Amino acid sequence: MQIPTFSNIQEAYQIIQPEVHQTPVLTNQQLDERTRGHIYLKCENFQKVGAFKIRGATYAISQLSDEEARQGVATHSSGNHAQAVALAAKKRGIPAYIVMPKNAPQVKVNAVKDYGANITFCESTQDARESTLRDVVDETGASFIHPYNNPHIITGQGTAALELLEQQPHLDMVLAPIGGGGLMSGTAITTSGLSREIAIVGSEPEVANDAFLSFQTGTLHPVQSTDTVADGLRTSLSELTFACIQKHVDEIVTVTEQQIIDAMRFIWERMKIIIEPSSAVPIAAALHHIDCTDKRIGIIISGGNIDLKHLPWQS
Amino acid sequence: MQIPTFSNIQEAYQIIQPEVHQTPVLTNQQLDERTRGHIYLKCENFQKVGAFKIRGATYAISQLSDEEARQGVATHSSGNHAQAVALAAKKRGIPAYIVMPKNAPQVKVNAVKDYGANITFCESTQDARESTLRDVVDETGASFIHPYNNPHIITGQGTAALELLEQQPHLDMVLAPIGGGGLMSGTAITTSGLSREIAIVGSEPEVANDAFLSFQTGTLHPVQSTDTVADGLRTSLSELTFACIQKHVDEIVTVTEQQIIDAMRFIWERMKIIIEPSSAVPIAAALHHIDCTDKRIGIIISGGNIDLKHLPWQS
Repeated sequence: MQIPTFSNIQEAYQIIQPEVHQTPVLTNQQLDERTRGHIYLKCENFQKVGAFKIRGATYAISQLSDEEARQGVATHSSGNHAQAVALAAKKRGIPAYIVMPKNAPQVKVNAVKDYGANITFCESTQDARESTLRDVVDETGASFIHPYNNPHIITGQGTAALELLEQQPHLDMVLAPIGGGGLMSGTAITTSGLSREIAIVGSEPEVANDAFLSFQTGTLHPVQSTDTVADGLRTSLSELTFACIQKHVDEIVTVTEQQIIDAMRFIWERMKIIIEPSSAVPIAAALHHIDCTDKRIGIIISGGNIDLKHLPWQS
Repeated sequence: MQIPTFSNIQEAYQIIQPEVHQTPVLTNQQLDERTRGHIYLKCENFQKVGAFKIRGATYAISQLSDEEARQGVATHSSGNHAQAVALAAKKRGIPAYIVMPKNAPQVKVNAVKDYGANITFCESTQDARESTLRDVVDETGASFIHPYNNPHIITGQGTAALELLEQQPHLDMVLAPIGGGGLMSGTAITTSGLSREIAIVGSEPEVANDAFLSFQTGTLHPVQSTDTVADGLRTSLSELTFACIQKHVDEIVTVTEQQIIDAMRFIWERMKIIIEPSSAVPIAAALHHIDCTDKRIGIIISGGNIDLKHLPWQS
């Protein structure tokens, strides 16, 4: 698979723009005081489905031929990507087949159902998900839309940074979280395509530091522990996202679980916006691990989907 | 005391504008679908101190003579008004004396302290608060800034609706919550001053329906129960706010505790913004008690200050 280019992302933006929200860029005086910098939050928590994922899903689905599209699309996910694929498929008027673990939270099952997707339940192991997905694809002929090991997905996710840099062109650094690496890859391609002067920094939980280790050693390390509060960042990089990150990212920093929880609570309390734990990871990086002094730093806030009955500062 | 006029509010806005945020007006597709109307939320949760209260406090303090100002200002409150008075006094460079109950949450005490105010603790009864305040005023010569029984406070609070109607001029109705009635009074004066065509509706918890009863009977009823989740709406109207409401408000509707909690959670989940329970009261009114069909309705979101450790859907 080829690494997407900056011009791929520019073209993708033209295509998906009518289907996604232009999310706001917010600032906060107390955040600036604490970091000693100027922090610009690109608020994809206000995006459709509550996360940047709709960008990649919309673009990937737009790139299917009519014949492919008729067979529908499939994916396995219990998170934001499932909702994004379901909604983007609904918009194109094609079937979506979503494989979800039996123990997926009812609220997420309902959200996918509300978009009219077909759900197949499976055991909650990775093997069961993948084999069930293969069965669904065999039966239906649907196209598998991988959440990040897919150049169109990466291309779509890169449009968030494109919008950020249109809204706030003069940045010294762009920061994003790294899970499977789709958002980070797209962000890095966009940012380096627009300017060589902007530092590109990834951030990851210390306990799920596969991207950090892979980046340091030059070899793909699968994630060892998934015991992080940042539930969107429990996945490993793929060959494709690792290649993008190696090519374009300048640095990856890691943060502790307590730093993630504190950063999330700080944003909720001071800015009155709901961000999910994964989005607090780059905030924590800016607060504790990066010298932000007098720098203009854009941060991609990946989403705002969280179970409001179980907040991390209450456990 | 005289009821403030629309032109008082226009003048006040000129004075306080440099000191307060122009808060955004947000919309949401799902909220519109559920109400069958077009709902415009004036987001004072994004205001300084996290609530509209800074508007009234800033204006009231701006109206003190230099001699009065030198003696400082005083109030008793454990809520948003205390922080607003503390910050507005700090901005004018004068002392603030805040009487707070001993059992006030530490986070609120710290917030007031952070603005440099002098805190006097007292027992948590209304009597203790009032007598302690009198002592503080006697000792210091400070001016008492009542949270709502003060024409300048009402005038300042009315600037939120003024901004809303500048941002979204074509409304059929404006909805606000009623606690002591300062926000409702200011909102009603502004709205009726701008147009006789816009309906002005107040909303209140059913279990703290003093304004509803007073409005229905024409006689001021003090609040009987303070057992509502909407902690900002536990106070009774004053003579002054009751007079404003009688003159300008068209209707008052009441909502149940469960409707408040559900409405608050709906906004958090769907819009990813943090609103306090008091702000969910007019949302619940729009969802359950008002015919919104095809109407353009502005709602004043009063604030976003809530203890994130104790959310009402968890108790």
